[in-house]
Amino acid sequence: MSWIDVTYHVGARAAEIESVATALALEQSVELPAEVVRDPWVREHVMGRVERIDPLGGDRFEVAIRLATATTGQDAAQAINMLFGNSSLHDHVELVDARFPNDFAAGFGGPRFGIEGIRRLARIHGRPLTCAALKPQGLPAERLAELAYTFAAAGIDVVKDDHGLADQSYSPFAARVAACRRALERAERETGRTCLYAPSLVGTPRTLARLARIARDEGAQMLLVAPALVGLPAFHELVQEVLDVPVLAHPAYAGAARVAPPLLLGTLFRLLGADASIFPNAGGRFAYSVRTCTEIAERSRRPWSGMRAMLPVPAGGMSVEGAPEMVREYGDDAMLLIGGSLLAAGDRLRERAHAFVEAVASASASHGSRPASAVAGA
Amino acid sequence: MSWIDVTYHVGARAAEIESVATALALEQSVELPAEVVRDPWVREHVMGRVERIDPLGGDRFEVAIRLATATTGQDAAQAINMLFGNSSLHDHVELVDARFPNDFAAGFGGPRFGIEGIRRLARIHGRPLTCAALKPQGLPAERLAELAYTFAAAGIDVVKDDHGLADQSYSPFAARVAACRRALERAERETGRTCLYAPSLVGTPRTLARLARIARDEGAQMLLVAPALVGLPAFHELVQEVLDVPVLAHPAYAGAARVAPPLLLGTLFRLLGADASIFPNAGGRFAYSVRTCTEIAERSRRPWSGMRAMLPVPAGGMSVEGAPEMVREYGDDAMLLIGGSLLAAGDRLRERAHAFVEAVASASASHGSRPASAVAGA
Repeated sequence: MSWIDVTYHVGARAAEIESVATALALEQSVELPAEVVRDPWVREHVMGRVERIDPLGGDRFEVAIRLATATTGQDAAQAINMLFGNSSLHDHVELVDARFPNDFAAGFGGPRFGIEGIRRLARIHGRPLTCAALKPQGLPAERLAELAYTFAAAGIDVVKDDHGLADQSYSPFAARVAACRRALERAERETGRTCLYAPSLVGTPRTLARLARIARDEGAQMLLVAPALVGLPAFHELVQEVLDVPVLAHPAYAGAARVAPPLLLGTLFRLLGADASIFPNAGGRFAYSVRTCTEIAERSRRPWSGMRAMLPVPAGGMSVEGAPEMVREYGDDAMLLIGGSLLAAGDRLRERAHAFVEAVASASASHGSRPASAVAGA
Repeated sequence: MSWIDVTYHVGARAAEIESVATALALEQSVELPAEVVRDPWVREHVMGRVERIDPLGGDRFEVAIRLATATTGQDAAQAINMLFGNSSLHDHVELVDARFPNDFAAGFGGPRFGIEGIRRLARIHGRPLTCAALKPQGLPAERLAELAYTFAAAGIDVVKDDHGLADQSYSPFAARVAACRRALERAERETGRTCLYAPSLVGTPRTLARLARIARDEGAQMLLVAPALVGLPAFHELVQEVLDVPVLAHPAYAGAARVAPPLLLGTLFRLLGADASIFPNAGGRFAYSVRTCTEIAERSRRPWSGMRAMLPVPAGGMSVEGAPEMVREYGDDAMLLIGGSLLAAGDRLRERAHAFVEAVASASASHGSRPASAVAGA
């Protein structure tokens, strides 16, 4: 039998941490006091175990617990349930990390394309990729398509929908994807360069499948999906059973305050099949620390029992001026996403987007080709 | 056009709260600075607006924002995205409340059975319902079925699976549901009383649909689903398109620290179609306050443009001794769920379960039939 090693940060007084940790192990497995569990097989094979308690200073402790892999039934929903089902309701508990047995991870499969697959599609090697966003929502499809054309003509590698673009009356999904794809094909004919389009899939599971079919028919080469928003289990099934292009994960509704962002946006999104993962970069309009961001990137790319690497995508209030710093921070195996600050250029959008493309190329060249692993170890 | 009124609690210094509130309204709509949004139609019909800022004391404020209903596309995933997509990543923002236009709420539909439908199925009127849980996971189907039989024979109204029971190797879903239903039919033949069985559905969307079909074939009269765990959009679609029995919502993975529990477990679970909603009762093993619990119950039952009432189900470390207090607190339109503390009775399980049934009946009788609205107004 195999176990998942789960780490929590727990607030408790030192005198109580042992019983609090035991209660946590029970809550996340048998959901009964230990003495009520009288079946020896259940005690041995199903009941959670406290493996380690380390003080973090003050009234905080790191608690490591082992949960039986068999309790997950190898299902995404049930796995999340075992990691943080009831305990997510406990204010004093934060889910920090999980280490999965190799056979368990292999059963999920992870990215189907990953960094290599995205690079192959975009035909970009040896430097970070660049990404820009179509917004604001409310614009009709043709206006968004004009933006897409401008970005592609400026040399951007990937154009994604803003995650707020869904299937609204003012810009229906099918019309938008068709218009944007036509615009990008025109740019490709003119420049000879590919610009991948990642429309935003938002909806219930059937809606996701329906929109994915439309995107495929129109030739979209990537898709933007927010796993926490559509639900991690629905996300995993969509990736496994419906999609045949790389998936760019968006952090919307991840509300990661109680689940550590590196675990959710790094490890879990990768485990469930995201090929690239957008996260709010330090110094932008979200409050993630440099350390959190480095850790997300590290988990996206680190070796993991044959699982493909996921492309880290720092974003969230980034500027062209900050691009060289991001290249230094994340190395070549990354995609830089700039949204609003490109659009703020107004009529000079194309020049601004081109400046972004140039900044990344020159920052990458000046650093030489730094392998991702060097960054990961930083 | 119509608007959703959304309320957030925001941490900010007084000198900055206006700009922080404006940034929030933009983040949850156009995701661009206002001056970049130059299209007049988008400014008028799509861009979010700050309606009100009230001080909460210290550096905290209540901020009311209007979001255009059209941005949701009347889809569960996109509605959540608009309420708290990116802002869930902001440590200083908490989603507290949302008031939906009637046509929007009607489009979702809410509970298909609600309190009335559950009472009709259980044939219980004029007192709170009683509920007990099958656990621990790890026991084989036949052992869980024995527990179910004992609870039904003792007079419990609803027997639910523990939310950790999924489709694991040690107790496959189909075998468990068949065994438990047989056990409950036997109890019904012997006692002449109905005991509803609510098996736990956990899984990806297709798994949920498959398990729901098995449950229907076996005659399960209710189902337990954790909306936050399977994903709110997947939950809503399951309710609308697959299920034909009442749904008991479980709070697993709701991690409601950043989304106010009354909104998530009360309003949103009801909007998306839960017929009954389990929540951690004050004084149990979770830290919800009496006020939070009262508010969840109030939102479950209050009049809402013709939408059915949802049955509040206080739970989480409750005891038989506490049942009278819960009856006083929640009135008759509630279902009391006791889990582990019944199972702790060991060989005296049936007597203990019967004592629970009796405690509820006598507490209800001694209070007279108090209408839910009186409680709701408390």
